[in-house]
Amino acid sequence: MSEVVTAAMVVIGDEILSGRTKDRNIGHLAVMMTAVGIDLKEVRIVADEKEAIVEAVNALRKRYSYVFTSGGIGPTHDDITAEAVAAAFDVPCDYDPEAYRMLEEHYKARDIPFTEARKRMARVPKGASLITNPVSVAPGFRIENVHVMAGVPAIFQAMLDNVIPTLRTGAKLLSVSIPSPHPEGSIGGPLAEIQKAHGETLIGSYPKYHDDKFWTEIVVRSRSEEALRGAKEAIEQMLAGLLQHN
Amino acid sequence: MSEVVTAAMVVIGDEILSGRTKDRNIGHLAVMMTAVGIDLKEVRIVADEKEAIVEAVNALRKRYSYVFTSGGIGPTHDDITAEAVAAAFDVPCDYDPEAYRMLEEHYKARDIPFTEARKRMARVPKGASLITNPVSVAPGFRIENVHVMAGVPAIFQAMLDNVIPTLRTGAKLLSVSIPSPHPEGSIGGPLAEIQKAHGETLIGSYPKYHDDKFWTEIVVRSRSEEALRGAKEAIEQMLAGLLQHN
Repeated sequence: MSEVVTAAMVVIGDEILSGRTKDRNIGHLAVMMTAVGIDLKEVRIVADEKEAIVEAVNALRKRYSYVFTSGGIGPTHDDITAEAVAAAFDVPCDYDPEAYRMLEEHYKARDIPFTEARKRMARVPKGASLITNPVSVAPGFRIENVHVMAGVPAIFQAMLDNVIPTLRTGAKLLSVSIPSPHPEGSIGGPLAEIQKAHGETLIGSYPKYHDDKFWTEIVVRSRSEEALRGAKEAIEQMLAGLLQHN
Repeated sequence: MSEVVTAAMVVIGDEILSGRTKDRNIGHLAVMMTAVGIDLKEVRIVADEKEAIVEAVNALRKRYSYVFTSGGIGPTHDDITAEAVAAAFDVPCDYDPEAYRMLEEHYKARDIPFTEARKRMARVPKGASLITNPVSVAPGFRIENVHVMAGVPAIFQAMLDNVIPTLRTGAKLLSVSIPSPHPEGSIGGPLAEIQKAHGETLIGSYPKYHDDKFWTEIVVRSRSEEALRGAKEAIEQMLAGLLQHN
């Protein structure tokens, strides 16, 4: 059996916690992880505060195969992710010569001053390697199993595209969705029995509320195609039985 | 000065972590908390696993004035939030007579069987009080500073509307948004100086990327109107100075 690879995410940003900006990176990472067979197990959204970032990164990097962060790597005083991640690893944060050179060239070519603020974007924790940013040059970085990326969705997505080929990936989690016309309360009992009998699957049940009616989406997940099929058939039989009774 | 009231949120659900469902409750809670002057400081998204829920609830309820959870209070086997929250408080989880009666009447009136699965929705931790659910009856609950609510957005929002009048609220955090035509790299240095000089404000800077151009939204937050105005004027002066130099 293939290895199970896990991941967690840290979203850094007061603007998400205040509701001013709606996060769009969590959903994107979730979909991409599922697509490549990595289990996203936990997400934390924290403020632009050093201790909060350090605590989240340290709690999660020890527990999961990979950690991905978004936000806080720009040039302003509230962009403290690089410093905080360096502190989490207890290493210095300093100018990376390659990042510095790339940024210097980029701004020179555009006749834009390479200010102290812009120079800050070349700072990474000692021992980190760079993650290319095809949108606006200022790189993300990877240190051990932690990948630090931008918060702007277009840049986050581009960086993630560069990171994904470097990851170990697990056996893909297969899934099948079975719509149930019955609300959860009608199928909860039999569904629990089916879950018990099909241990190699994870059966989720998601209530849907639409036009004053409840129905249920049942989702079966498994790393085994055979186990998936077995549980699916059992659920379909159960649903057919309920229809006949009504 | 008014008390600072803080909050955290725990989103419970494999469907969010797999990317199958996009969360809509975090943004809603964030906006509502800001509106009533409560600081949302941290959000965790965890899987439908008892230990994960217990850990998140216990970490956050000790640290913040309020905790709000969404998800996992339906009738199926993967709805384990009530059990997990009871475990977090180390109290039993049992049928609440009032919740049981409400649900029994609701289903009886609709000629729907009151199954064992549906009865599960009457279970709450000992000592909890109910949160009314005007959409589909099955209640949420509050135990100490933890508010447990549904994951279906229409129900989450209705429950939250019932909870908000019961909360202590802090002095409202005022905010003003100042669009800057300059990218972050051009204003990062002077903005950091302004932040230093205006300690009673929190100055955030959010890069915007649109049509191949970077610009910046600067947001100043403060509980004092005077402090807000002072920082705003300093930023506007700084931006005007930069325009003259170009």
